[in-house]
Amino acid sequence: MSLPDPSWTPADAGYAERVRRSFERQAVMQTLGITLDEVAPGRIMLGMTHQPHLVQQHGFLHAGVVSTALDSACGYAAFSLMPADAAVLTIEFKVNLLAPARGPRFRVEGQVVKAGRTITVTEGRAIERGERGERLVATMTATVMTVLGREGIQH
Amino acid sequence: MSLPDPSWTPADAGYAERVRRSFERQAVMQTLGITLDEVAPGRIMLGMTHQPHLVQQHGFLHAGVVSTALDSACGYAAFSLMPADAAVLTIEFKVNLLAPARGPRFRVEGQVVKAGRTITVTEGRAIERGERGERLVATMTATVMTVLGREGIQH
Amino acid sequence: MSLPDPSWTPADAGYAERVRRSFERQAVMQTLGITLDEVAPGRIMLGMTHQPHLVQQHGFLHAGVVSTALDSACGYAAFSLMPADAAVLTIEFKVNLLAPARGPRFRVEGQVVKAGRTITVTEGRAIERGERGERLVATMTATVMTVLGREGIQH
Amino acid sequence: MSLPDPSWTPADAGYAERVRRSFERQAVMQTLGITLDEVAPGRIMLGMTHQPHLVQQHGFLHAGVVSTALDSACGYAAFSLMPADAAVLTIEFKVNLLAPARGPRFRVEGQVVKAGRTITVTEGRAIERGERGERLVATMTATVMTVLGREGIQH
Repeated sequence: MSLPDPSWTPADAGYAERVRRSFERQAVMQTLGITLDEVAPGRIMLGMTHQPHLVQQHGFLHAGVVSTALDSACGYAAFSLMPADAAVLTIEFKVNLLAPARGPRFRVEGQVVKAGRTITVTEGRAIERGERGERLVATMTATVMTVLGREGIQH
Repeated sequence: MSLPDPSWTPADAGYAERVRRSFERQAVMQTLGITLDEVAPGRIMLGMTHQPHLVQQHGFLHAGVVSTALDSACGYAAFSLMPADAAVLTIEFKVNLLAPARGPRFRVEGQVVKAGRTITVTEGRAIERGERGERLVATMTATVMTVLGREGIQH
Repeated sequence: MSLPDPSWTPADAGYAERVRRSFERQAVMQTLGITLDEVAPGRIMLGMTHQPHLVQQHGFLHAGVVSTALDSACGYAAFSLMPADAAVLTIEFKVNLLAPARGPRFRVEGQVVKAGRTITVTEGRAIERGERGERLVATMTATVMTVLGREGIQH
Repeated sequence: MSLPDPSWTPADAGYAERVRRSFERQAVMQTLGITLDEVAPGRIMLGMTHQPHLVQQHGFLHAGVVSTALDSACGYAAFSLMPADAAVLTIEFKVNLLAPARGPRFRVEGQVVKAGRTITVTEGRAIERGERGERLVATMTATVMTVLGREGIQH
């Protein structure tokens, strides 16, 4: 809102490659047809389409599928600013569903709002790109933890 | 916590069949291997397993997949108490991720906390059933709307 | 983020006066020293200061006080777009606390993200105005209901 | 829900006295008339009354005031399990408002759901105690951080 979007400096110059490699290991992204379209410091854009095997009872994309994309977008936005040896862990997220997810295409963005030593707060937007133009269908706030030096990745 | 779990009286005696029919139309449930195991008034239990094509980068079930099951459990818990001609619409949900979702099996419950004329508030729990017994891996609070007499199912 | 901030048309030309009158009835605003500084369609700005009788154990403004201001900012942002005879009801809100609220002054904004017939989704920002300039201390997402024709204002 | 309420062992035998001392430093508790009624390991109960200077526009207790009590109940529930030298920091919370807060009295409880090394997840309930008996008016989920060895108490 009234503060300009922050611009972030990555701690690790190889952040984009690190994000891409991790994204490729998220097998569920392929299962759901979610693509990694843009990586910038503290900002990620994913792409997604409406598919008949991903719908809820009214034929819209299931809110959980939209949330899966939003969670990855937010998590990787945070991850892009972390040190090279850190792991990322989503602690919690909250989603508001604003409109039915009809598609056919979606742009799903995640952006860092505050990057702290341990806790990073991010916001996400899922935007439908259909016949009537762009339309905001869901928003997310996600809280993400930087995990260093722990094998178990457990909080 | 200190109030006993409420017991609910369904507005529609055919609630269980209505929930089952709607669940079957959620194609994403089959895609993710989520099953409808129990239907009671204001209370739903789903089943889910860890599967390699649903994981995030560390090999755990993706938080979005767990959230998809939680959202359906909460939504159908609310839907079970609605009139026969109502549609259910999730307005928002919030998830806390407490532990990595290793599996191999999960029980995912949704329960109504407050059933109002327009707004129903629900809570969900995803419980891992593994070698070490039962373990709470995620919680959800979901706010659900009863939609009557609208074709577009849009809020 | 990537969609421009929406511009809203109020349903009631007397929206600003209606917001001001309602705000004056919120006695807690005076108790906490919160002022109504700006009213625009779908957008509210409140003012607040750090006060010793409002702090938590480390001397910062209590998160609940910041949330009280954010809730009113979001609720009135929604209310400004409602019909003249509507009542506003907050269904739920979620707050992220990004930094200690030191003050001495705060600007607290609420803004409508999606205005629906029944449900309006809003976002809020609490911005500290101190020696080091402006600093985001908390964010809110609030879901608000338009209540028409009900005396009891109960959902 | 289906898992029994956990029973917690405090890391610090002097937890109750530590909670009481910290609560007394929260000046806002006195301003709002909130009392610390019970301290148990991982579980706190506060008391509160409806007061005319704490209301919103319809004469109910303002949601922000209810949230302030819930936040303290949840925060101290987490704090009761922390080491003696730890500070507690609320990262985020989410509130659902189920019914108007008429009073005249309220019991506000906070309880630990998962106590981790860094992150503790808690749930709260605000229960009205009025002429018609007990009634759940609001629920909270709060995520709390254990802060060790940092002067600035900043995340």
